[in-house]
Amino acid sequence: MCGVFGAYSASGAPVLEDVYLGLSALQHRGQLSAGVAWTQGGSVHIKKGLGLVHEALQQNELAEIEAHAAIGHVRYATAGGTERENSQPLGANYAQGPVAIAHNGNLTNATALSSYLANRGAIFQTTCDTETIIQLMAHQPSTVQLEALENALTKITGAYSIAVLFEDCLIAARDPWGFRPLALGRRGDDYFVASESCAFEIIGAEFLRDVEAGEILVIDRRGVISRRLPITAQRLRHCSFEYVYFARPDSVIDGRSVYAARKNLGACLARGGKCPQNSIVAGMPDSGTLAALGLAQEAGVPFEAGVVRNRYVGRTFIQPTQRVREAGVKIKLNPQPGIFDGKEAVIVDDSIVRGTTAGRTVSTIRGAGAKKVHMRIASPPVRYPCYYGIDTPSSEELIAAQSDIEELRVKIGADTLRYISCEELCESIGLPREELCTACFDGGYLDEEESGGRLEV
Amino acid sequence: MCGVFGAYSASGAPVLEDVYLGLSALQHRGQLSAGVAWTQGGSVHIKKGLGLVHEALQQNELAEIEAHAAIGHVRYATAGGTERENSQPLGANYAQGPVAIAHNGNLTNATALSSYLANRGAIFQTTCDTETIIQLMAHQPSTVQLEALENALTKITGAYSIAVLFEDCLIAARDPWGFRPLALGRRGDDYFVASESCAFEIIGAEFLRDVEAGEILVIDRRGVISRRLPITAQRLRHCSFEYVYFARPDSVIDGRSVYAARKNLGACLARGGKCPQNSIVAGMPDSGTLAALGLAQEAGVPFEAGVVRNRYVGRTFIQPTQRVREAGVKIKLNPQPGIFDGKEAVIVDDSIVRGTTAGRTVSTIRGAGAKKVHMRIASPPVRYPCYYGIDTPSSEELIAAQSDIEELRVKIGADTLRYISCEELCESIGLPREELCTACFDGGYLDEEESGGRLEV
Amino acid sequence: MCGVFGAYSASGAPVLEDVYLGLSALQHRGQLSAGVAWTQGGSVHIKKGLGLVHEALQQNELAEIEAHAAIGHVRYATAGGTERENSQPLGANYAQGPVAIAHNGNLTNATALSSYLANRGAIFQTTCDTETIIQLMAHQPSTVQLEALENALTKITGAYSIAVLFEDCLIAARDPWGFRPLALGRRGDDYFVASESCAFEIIGAEFLRDVEAGEILVIDRRGVISRRLPITAQRLRHCSFEYVYFARPDSVIDGRSVYAARKNLGACLARGGKCPQNSIVAGMPDSGTLAALGLAQEAGVPFEAGVVRNRYVGRTFIQPTQRVREAGVKIKLNPQPGIFDGKEAVIVDDSIVRGTTAGRTVSTIRGAGAKKVHMRIASPPVRYPCYYGIDTPSSEELIAAQSDIEELRVKIGADTLRYISCEELCESIGLPREELCTACFDGGYLDEEESGGRLEV
Amino acid sequence: MCGVFGAYSASGAPVLEDVYLGLSALQHRGQLSAGVAWTQGGSVHIKKGLGLVHEALQQNELAEIEAHAAIGHVRYATAGGTERENSQPLGANYAQGPVAIAHNGNLTNATALSSYLANRGAIFQTTCDTETIIQLMAHQPSTVQLEALENALTKITGAYSIAVLFEDCLIAARDPWGFRPLALGRRGDDYFVASESCAFEIIGAEFLRDVEAGEILVIDRRGVISRRLPITAQRLRHCSFEYVYFARPDSVIDGRSVYAARKNLGACLARGGKCPQNSIVAGMPDSGTLAALGLAQEAGVPFEAGVVRNRYVGRTFIQPTQRVREAGVKIKLNPQPGIFDGKEAVIVDDSIVRGTTAGRTVSTIRGAGAKKVHMRIASPPVRYPCYYGIDTPSSEELIAAQSDIEELRVKIGADTLRYISCEELCESIGLPREELCTACFDGGYLDEEESGGRLEV
Repeated sequence: MCGVFGAYSASGAPVLEDVYLGLSALQHRGQLSAGVAWTQGGSVHIKKGLGLVHEALQQNELAEIEAHAAIGHVRYATAGGTERENSQPLGANYAQGPVAIAHNGNLTNATALSSYLANRGAIFQTTCDTETIIQLMAHQPSTVQLEALENALTKITGAYSIAVLFEDCLIAARDPWGFRPLALGRRGDDYFVASESCAFEIIGAEFLRDVEAGEILVIDRRGVISRRLPITAQRLRHCSFEYVYFARPDSVIDGRSVYAARKNLGACLARGGKCPQNSIVAGMPDSGTLAALGLAQEAGVPFEAGVVRNRYVGRTFIQPTQRVREAGVKIKLNPQPGIFDGKEAVIVDDSIVRGTTAGRTVSTIRGAGAKKVHMRIASPPVRYPCYYGIDTPSSEELIAAQSDIEELRVKIGADTLRYISCEELCESIGLPREELCTACFDGGYLDEEESGGRLEV
Repeated sequence: MCGVFGAYSASGAPVLEDVYLGLSALQHRGQLSAGVAWTQGGSVHIKKGLGLVHEALQQNELAEIEAHAAIGHVRYATAGGTERENSQPLGANYAQGPVAIAHNGNLTNATALSSYLANRGAIFQTTCDTETIIQLMAHQPSTVQLEALENALTKITGAYSIAVLFEDCLIAARDPWGFRPLALGRRGDDYFVASESCAFEIIGAEFLRDVEAGEILVIDRRGVISRRLPITAQRLRHCSFEYVYFARPDSVIDGRSVYAARKNLGACLARGGKCPQNSIVAGMPDSGTLAALGLAQEAGVPFEAGVVRNRYVGRTFIQPTQRVREAGVKIKLNPQPGIFDGKEAVIVDDSIVRGTTAGRTVSTIRGAGAKKVHMRIASPPVRYPCYYGIDTPSSEELIAAQSDIEELRVKIGADTLRYISCEELCESIGLPREELCTACFDGGYLDEEESGGRLEV
Repeated sequence: MCGVFGAYSASGAPVLEDVYLGLSALQHRGQLSAGVAWTQGGSVHIKKGLGLVHEALQQNELAEIEAHAAIGHVRYATAGGTERENSQPLGANYAQGPVAIAHNGNLTNATALSSYLANRGAIFQTTCDTETIIQLMAHQPSTVQLEALENALTKITGAYSIAVLFEDCLIAARDPWGFRPLALGRRGDDYFVASESCAFEIIGAEFLRDVEAGEILVIDRRGVISRRLPITAQRLRHCSFEYVYFARPDSVIDGRSVYAARKNLGACLARGGKCPQNSIVAGMPDSGTLAALGLAQEAGVPFEAGVVRNRYVGRTFIQPTQRVREAGVKIKLNPQPGIFDGKEAVIVDDSIVRGTTAGRTVSTIRGAGAKKVHMRIASPPVRYPCYYGIDTPSSEELIAAQSDIEELRVKIGADTLRYISCEELCESIGLPREELCTACFDGGYLDEEESGGRLEV
Repeated sequence: MCGVFGAYSASGAPVLEDVYLGLSALQHRGQLSAGVAWTQGGSVHIKKGLGLVHEALQQNELAEIEAHAAIGHVRYATAGGTERENSQPLGANYAQGPVAIAHNGNLTNATALSSYLANRGAIFQTTCDTETIIQLMAHQPSTVQLEALENALTKITGAYSIAVLFEDCLIAARDPWGFRPLALGRRGDDYFVASESCAFEIIGAEFLRDVEAGEILVIDRRGVISRRLPITAQRLRHCSFEYVYFARPDSVIDGRSVYAARKNLGACLARGGKCPQNSIVAGMPDSGTLAALGLAQEAGVPFEAGVVRNRYVGRTFIQPTQRVREAGVKIKLNPQPGIFDGKEAVIVDDSIVRGTTAGRTVSTIRGAGAKKVHMRIASPPVRYPCYYGIDTPSSEELIAAQSDIEELRVKIGADTLRYISCEELCESIGLPREELCTACFDGGYLDEEESGGRLEV
């Protein structure tokens, strides 16, 4: 639940404004902090700050920096606290020169690696798992940087889509399972990497292809070279929740349109049971809207923009605390007055996490005059925490892990409640189940054998 | 194009956090600055700053202020520059005590009033027309405040919906024509006034009614008293553009739902001419979406969320400069990849002002694969500047004032272009034409006789 | 207890950096805030901030402003609170154009003037007495500025040395009694006014002469014209405390050297009684140092720099609160270790106000090994508050108003204590007693007849 | 040219306000930045900022921190740039726990140590030589902290007086030569270390003794233990320039009073040659004042405070750039008008570095009316750069390294110019020449044999 961006201009054009704009397009992936890194005079330079991209960084200032290679990051905390020092990119100048990294994902063996490194004299500046990659490189003082990075990547496990900057070279790498997305774009001789393809449009670049799972792209003056990590995964594990909630609908991830996936999820819900007479369909903005539209079109029932979102407040899920989250919901969502009067409301949301939003939604819609409220969820029940880069709560806080669906329906106060199955989810996305990670729905995590074996640190 | 909010708690509860939340709900009406005012110890206190509500003000700080009456303002410049000193509310302590004012609208005789006052010794602190109301009051040093305010209001002409704060009394007043909206709400014994009814939901208050044109509400410990300005307008002139673009769709203004009005505008467009075979309908977010939905439902053509808006960039129209506006459009709107391929696109927008956005939209949609692009505008052509509080450019910059519709179609590059008529606009809103201001469409401004006569300053 | 500075370049050279440097040289006169004003495009522009000159203002920024006339101010509160809005210069644009004022002194009829003005519609922006001068001018909207200023000055009473800026004209004026100093300097065709002559050295200007009591200097492109207020004082009242404490020793005020005055004060003390055998003389830095040197030289006793001042803490007297003042003394003054061992210490200070410092000084010096501590005060006992611009406390807090000298000696714990007389003070300064204000020593204030008569407001 | 301070309260009282006050008393040793460090919850916490102590740190904020052990630092750059990241204290949490260091001095083998450490994986966060001490400790991950520190100190050469903080233990250490001062103080059960004894007075502590060259003090709940570095210097090398210029006159360093030393230096100058008839003696404030007083008393010539210093501008020597230095001199020093008229001026300064100040001084005094100007310098000519912690320029910029004394006299325009010899300097201080470093006067640096031998890194 972070966004990374990288830019390399073979013609030597300055790229930091491109990085700024690219990060703006990825803003939905993280709102806690934003930062950029570039190299100059043999040193790494970093600017970062808390808040949204435009709060953390100064567009004008960046536009004036003469650097033809740079990376950027927007962050929502996964590992590490929320403080400024944990903002990314992280950078260092060590024996082999400058290095900076922007990381989306979550390392599952960060604690073991930290001990290993501390016992070799490492001083950690952050509590961010990403720093272990840099420290692993610094502890290979006589190994050239690309090799040192590849060695480091063989030591870490978990999810990572990273953009890495050396003195005059941009690297993009994706873990062997392909958990988090990573895309490659081009504009003339300039190359870009971004967490999502939607970030290319804004800078006038074209989307070339996804970076593949286990692939390392090396981008420099001579162009792009593709390399492979020496580790092979047993199967792919592209995050299915990206299609359900995270990604922007105008992105295409691993060959599948997010927009189409969401409309298909709604159509699935429509096929799962008829809408009542005299009903209207409305989606919870923004992530439930497309599934609602898909449901309405498949069912032939009127779609209404029945819930208004206050555009000046951030996304529900992405807010850090329960307290802010509760207040946030009330502040952000208003039902359209008059729309629901005397109707049966079919309300579509992307998922139910703690149940707070869903409960409030049902009572709000009922208070707006609906005779009945039918909740439709465009994903399977979320029952397990994510260890691969999404900040879901523990099972104790996941309402679907604590209740069966009928209990949950009663808790949120809906007249009916329906989910889709994991199979339907995969079908809607259009990828085989063996290529998707559905661990938050079915607990199917990487086992030790699959992830381990190379941790002999 | 500003928002005002006022709160009075008869039970003595602190209200500044309510004002903060109310302003957040009115954020779409102004993003240049935000401010609040309250009285304490016989003096007026003001906090204001540049930017969005959460940038300009500190919620925590406001929550701790013990004031049971307060007003607030969000601003987009109409008269006066954009500097901090012109942010509202404006306040002063004068011979009769403290006063603060938050103003939505535009005074048409501000220059004459300023000379009048300067010749009586007034020192102006701002270049904001609202200050003339305060100076007019201060120049009645021996008149009680309510009477001094009413006297001042008889001297000014133009559009105003104002919230005024005295030592222990909240006033709401609306000009005799009712140009800009103003609503009254209640929560127990607490009363609120707001530019739009949508601001009551967020604080758990109920919408009671509109403040009427020419009405003055006096709110204090004893409740609400309604008074009348001694001036009567020849006819009402509620701003029709509020329904087309400004207001939030979940607001009800002068008895008419904005949501319904927008869907009706779309239905009007549908009735105006059949959609081609194999076409899809998409709205320009956010203000074109509802009309697009209305058009699609009336025409029986599929509605698609075909254009994505980057949620972290402000509204097009509301940005202050042409340069930012151009850059802003590119940054904010992405077409859904794949949606338009081989289709005829029916694109609905609320209005065309300079034509920059429309031209870019057409080429963007065509670039996304559409065979043809049919622009549909959910209002009549904007041909005249607004003098009543909306920041429209002069006729020279209004593309519809410079071209007939066929010329305009060619300029923006659309295959077809269709507007609605003023009659259809009024029908869609649901108010008689004699109660609506349509001056920006037909040039029907207040004439001197109608507005004047009381300016013998 | 403020400092004013003004600059006018007939050759059109920018002068704001000169003002900045001039204010730095006057920093000892006020450390609460600093500000500058200039006119540009027919409007007055002001920059001011809290703290020392370099904290409140940006030298680089000022250096780039193209204004050939400007004024500045450093402030320690007399009338009005300490807030930013009360910082000076004050400025306004009114019917006749722009005006800005920097004021050293204290108006004795400010309250009456405020009522008078409020009853004519004035809105006060500050609680600073200086604003009444501007409001009096604005209430003469059809009178040219110089005449309006002179009319205003006939309405005010008390102490004022002011620098005033109009559109293209610098004015310097001093009240009819000449309470506070004001000096005129020149550098080529550029003229400067400053509270003290020491401010000219720093900018390479030469000190021409004092502005006379009751004189108005009008400085513009044609040079300097001298005018006279239509009010004549019965006698002059130059502040004697400027020589004792406030002014910088390298200033010459009303024809008398401050440095010489202070050494003379010390010599007076020496003539008042022999120093004991085996004694050393030390002054309390900084204001007691010169008197100590004068005493030592007259008495033929060794002078030692026996007390060290921490240079990074401000002046004792000038700190706003009792709490800070107490802590401040401990922090700022250290006795030299070893110097006083077994000696009789003759300690010279400029004055005793509350007695806190003196008491602490005696015990500190005794703690440093002195056998006896003889306090010598280079002024008469301060027994009356000042109403003419110095922030002395009320009589209740003035220790010399509450105790006779023997009681005071006991309270501060000195072995002996000696003051000088008012006659000796005047002789040391070198001006006749009829030309000096000694009201803080002898209560000889302006009586009503002398000050009044022109207040028929 | 930095100041360090440390505090440990065995009774568990909070000490950060003591550190703040102590640093204020040491402000003359560094004005570029200030910082403090303490441990809490097993981690090191640091607050630091640019500017003077009161600009960089918040007294109130520090007063509320519950830490009974802390260190602090004021800095003027020696090694490392002037940026915020190079401000001290430096701190880290590594395998053995938290550590923070404040350092006065300059390591002469920092470059070699950095390479050594980078080749073992170290990532440097600063360009400050002090960081090498921390990195050396972190590279002993299994060695207890005190032992690791002592091992680190055996690897470094050059000048260091350091205060070090571990989890619950304060360490003070001084290099084997005792270049820079370091003092131990006590207040009840609380112990303090400070660069100079003058810092104890302000917090009510008593000066116990100097930390000895090569001594390590370990201060914890059980009191103070003295240990010895395993390295012995051939002879002591206490910095003689501390007595001449740096230290505060109320400090006692290595058993010798700075005040007495400076007066003795002046007396030496007096004995070196008679003052002319009709002459007066004045010192350049602040560091020339005491020598001037000593000269005047020895010679029986009147001492005058003939040059005024603007108290609100920093020390000449301590300003970072030549440009600021030149402007600074003009701004800071004013001659007393009238004092020098027709006299022969004997002007005493502590030293001549680049000659800029001296030249300007002579012409200023002459411009003030002096018939002749006799410069007297209270130290030998500065001809060699300092490598032990003082920021002197290279020999090319040292005017006394480029000219003999007669040439120098001509360059600065004095009628006569006299220095003292190295022998006189040592006699005045009162220490044998073999215990003082006079390298900046005579080039007598540590040779390799003396400093080296333990650098087998």
